Amino acid sequence: MKPSLPQGTRDFDAATVRKRNYIFDTIKTVFELYGFQPLETPAMEHLETLMGKYGEEGDKLIFKILNNGLDNAEKAEKVKAGFEKILEGKSSTALTERALRYDLTIPFARYVAMNYNQLTMPFRRYQLQPVWRADRPQKGRYREFYQCDADVVGSKSLLNELELVAMYTTVFNRLNLPVEIRLNNRKILTALAEQCGGADKMTTIAIAIDKLDKIGIDKVKEELQQRGLSGEQIDLIQRFLEINGTNEEKLATLKAIFSGNETGEAGISELEYIIETSNVKRQTSDINKSDISPDSYQDQTLVIDPTLARGLNYYTGTIFEVKALNVKIGSIGGGGRYDDLTGLFGVPNVPGVGISFGVDRIYDVLTEINGFPADVHTGTRVLFFNLGTAEALKAFELMQQLREKGIAVELFHEPSKFDKQFKYAEKKEIPFVAILGSKELESGEVVIKNLKTGTQSPLAFGAITDYSFAG
Amino acid sequence: MKPSLPQGTRDFDAATVRKRNYIFDTIKTVFELYGFQPLETPAMEHLETLMGKYGEEGDKLIFKILNNGLDNAEKAEKVKAGFEKILEGKSSTALTERALRYDLTIPFARYVAMNYNQLTMPFRRYQLQPVWRADRPQKGRYREFYQCDADVVGSKSLLNELELVAMYTTVFNRLNLPVEIRLNNRKILTALAEQCGGADKMTTIAIAIDKLDKIGIDKVKEELQQRGLSGEQIDLIQRFLEINGTNEEKLATLKAIFSGNETGEAGISELEYIIETSNVKRQTSDINKSDISPDSYQDQTLVIDPTLARGLNYYTGTIFEVKALNVKIGSIGGGGRYDDLTGLFGVPNVPGVGISFGVDRIYDVLTEINGFPADVHTGTRVLFFNLGTAEALKAFELMQQLREKGIAVELFHEPSKFDKQFKYAEKKEIPFVAILGSKELESGEVVIKNLKTGTQSPLAFGAITDYSFAG
Repeated sequence: MKPSLPQGTRDFDAATVRKRNYIFDTIKTVFELYGFQPLETPAMEHLETLMGKYGEEGDKLIFKILNNGLDNAEKAEKVKAGFEKILEGKSSTALTERALRYDLTIPFARYVAMNYNQLTMPFRRYQLQPVWRADRPQKGRYREFYQCDADVVGSKSLLNELELVAMYTTVFNRLNLPVEIRLNNRKILTALAEQCGGADKMTTIAIAIDKLDKIGIDKVKEELQQRGLSGEQIDLIQRFLEINGTNEEKLATLKAIFSGNETGEAGISELEYIIETSNVKRQTSDINKSDISPDSYQDQTLVIDPTLARGLNYYTGTIFEVKALNVKIGSIGGGGRYDDLTGLFGVPNVPGVGISFGVDRIYDVLTEINGFPADVHTGTRVLFFNLGTAEALKAFELMQQLREKGIAVELFHEPSKFDKQFKYAEKKEIPFVAILGSKELESGEVVIKNLKTGTQSPLAFGAITDYSFAG
Repeated sequence: MKPSLPQGTRDFDAATVRKRNYIFDTIKTVFELYGFQPLETPAMEHLETLMGKYGEEGDKLIFKILNNGLDNAEKAEKVKAGFEKILEGKSSTALTERALRYDLTIPFARYVAMNYNQLTMPFRRYQLQPVWRADRPQKGRYREFYQCDADVVGSKSLLNELELVAMYTTVFNRLNLPVEIRLNNRKILTALAEQCGGADKMTTIAIAIDKLDKIGIDKVKEELQQRGLSGEQIDLIQRFLEINGTNEEKLATLKAIFSGNETGEAGISELEYIIETSNVKRQTSDINKSDISPDSYQDQTLVIDPTLARGLNYYTGTIFEVKALNVKIGSIGGGGRYDDLTGLFGVPNVPGVGISFGVDRIYDVLTEINGFPADVHTGTRVLFFNLGTAEALKAFELMQQLREKGIAVELFHEPSKFDKQFKYAEKKEIPFVAILGSKELESGEVVIKNLKTGTQSPLAFGAITDYSFAG
């Protein structure tokens, strides 16, 4: 049997794991600096926990797990009974009762609802785990991929939004990845719908926004007219779609458009607060820069984008989206504020706000811009040559001393010709070799060779722990 | 809907994640010091990759994934056609083609077979990922749990065994967990079977070994007689079962029993080599102890156990098993040497040796002996009180400076009474609070209170990054 991998899944070799961990660790470190605590949930949830939460399309893309023990006669009868449902694309509990995690939000909501009385509110959690979706695989889209979320629930304060924006800028500064953080507020879109005749106009507006890039403003206007919007309403939408300039200018235009509309004014004022307070860091960057990490000066751009709509049905306040600058790829992050995380699980009125990092795409961007630090590849530092039984045991003794010092070392597994052992070191990109033959065993020395520079020099056994295997 | 978790699965809260990561990180660090490189494989494999590899019982415990798109008419027909197979407990590819990882060994074998020509041999990999088994859940047995394996393949050298033993002792030294590492060699058990009439006697001997503790030597002898073994053969088995004393004494008895049996002598000589060379470290422990980590002196016990049988059908040479001392629990580690990892996947003659850590049990042992270090709980260090809009923004500015210094801080999410904010800090075990009210805003100071000692003192804004929030 010639082995292969299921479609849309991947093995990660050592170099890839290390680069992915560099991204994961950078994000986790920042999450922790902001007081977020780790949570891990199981890969499988009850099917009923997941079904109906992601829309009809989403339900179909959930990986369901076949019940075990179907050879049991009693169970088999139930499977038969429920079988017609399966053929209709519905799930039969006789056949499947569990499913794989589809995102991290619903398991988080399930966790908060289950443990609500034990949790100290506001509750800040981060979660970095794989999810599974039966999507058609294509370039950059996998059936198993990681999500990376930070949420704070149990608080309506805008200070949370301020901190989440700061987390985005800090993470992308640390990754040396220039991004644009786009901001909007769902209340502004609601206000626009209100002014166009009511909340049911939201879909029409969303479609117009979506098509603007593809078909241009004139065709959009035509379509809005066909959908029964008045000239005045269409003018308003056009004015809204054409908002541009600096953040300050955009805020001014928004204020003019929504003057007197309570919902709109609330959304604009929230947006304004985040933009203004996010400048705090810039004002403090006059402290000694050489003394501190790059976090203190804000390289990242915060941009108001009134047309940003992201997950309209779910979010109720601030909306975030992150785009990498200079690289053509979809958004590499996003999130927003919601009013009710856990209502579906019997615990109403838990508001919150969260952000998410698209770690697979961030990996792709860093690969494209050659953005991984050189020292991400931290494999074995020193290969000890194996030149005989007694020599190998003496090598092992020295190696144990180096390992105690935190230096990763390997012994070639069997006595072989120099050539073969050198090749192994080269293939595995091990920067140093240590040669300990019968002559060295007698003289109490080991020869250290730097494979990059080609220099080599003898070293007394007792001096090996003082040697720096750097560079 | 009242939410719950599928049977046998668990959520891990922050405290648990941190303690688990302490174990994972300790093991990973040691793996890396010995030149092992990380590998990650997907949660799902082709069903045919897994089926038939774990015995008939194992096949039943594999979690299978329901195919998607069963509402498609063509697919539905196939499902109907294959449905009878399902009711017989067999899998129909129309219904399921993928399954969840059941262990880390088979995915590793699949990976090595798929990538054999690209890999530099010997290939050392470690892997730390969850696996899923549809076992009946009970105390200490879960349906989702982590495995943690290190293997080196493509080498027959006993130096690998020596290094794996050193890895076990180093990990358990670093975890401050006293263990006994039991060693045996499959060849010795093969030799015993040979001397008792042939390889087919292995099962009889294994059962005898297994029952010894429960029914005693006399009943074991009775049973062996019933199974047709001669008096001489039974005497031999009794002599074998009664081997005791120091490792050196056990080796001497083994040599006497298997004198002239080639297989037996080979196994004994391999065992002897590992025991003797593993003492190397002890002989080198005269180097300055205060200067180095505890790895250099071997606290752990290496014990020959001729009755150790572990996975008889799989292993062909050295066998390892690790038992915690002073704690009643099953083995917390195990492994051994095998001749052929990838034959099932079309690549024959890849020998190897590996060890595994039972991380869930290690967690339970460390919990029982109170063995987690106090600083595993590294949550937020400082809670900044929120005493008004302007005060909070100034606090945020100071907080950003502390975060740049690597100190995890939080701002209380809304202006509240002192009492409420203190309670939040206490519940979350945050050791310091920083109080910045209107008075402090004017004077340019923040009051730092240590919640453990109760002491508090004012600190100039500019001095905050020099303050140590330790202890």
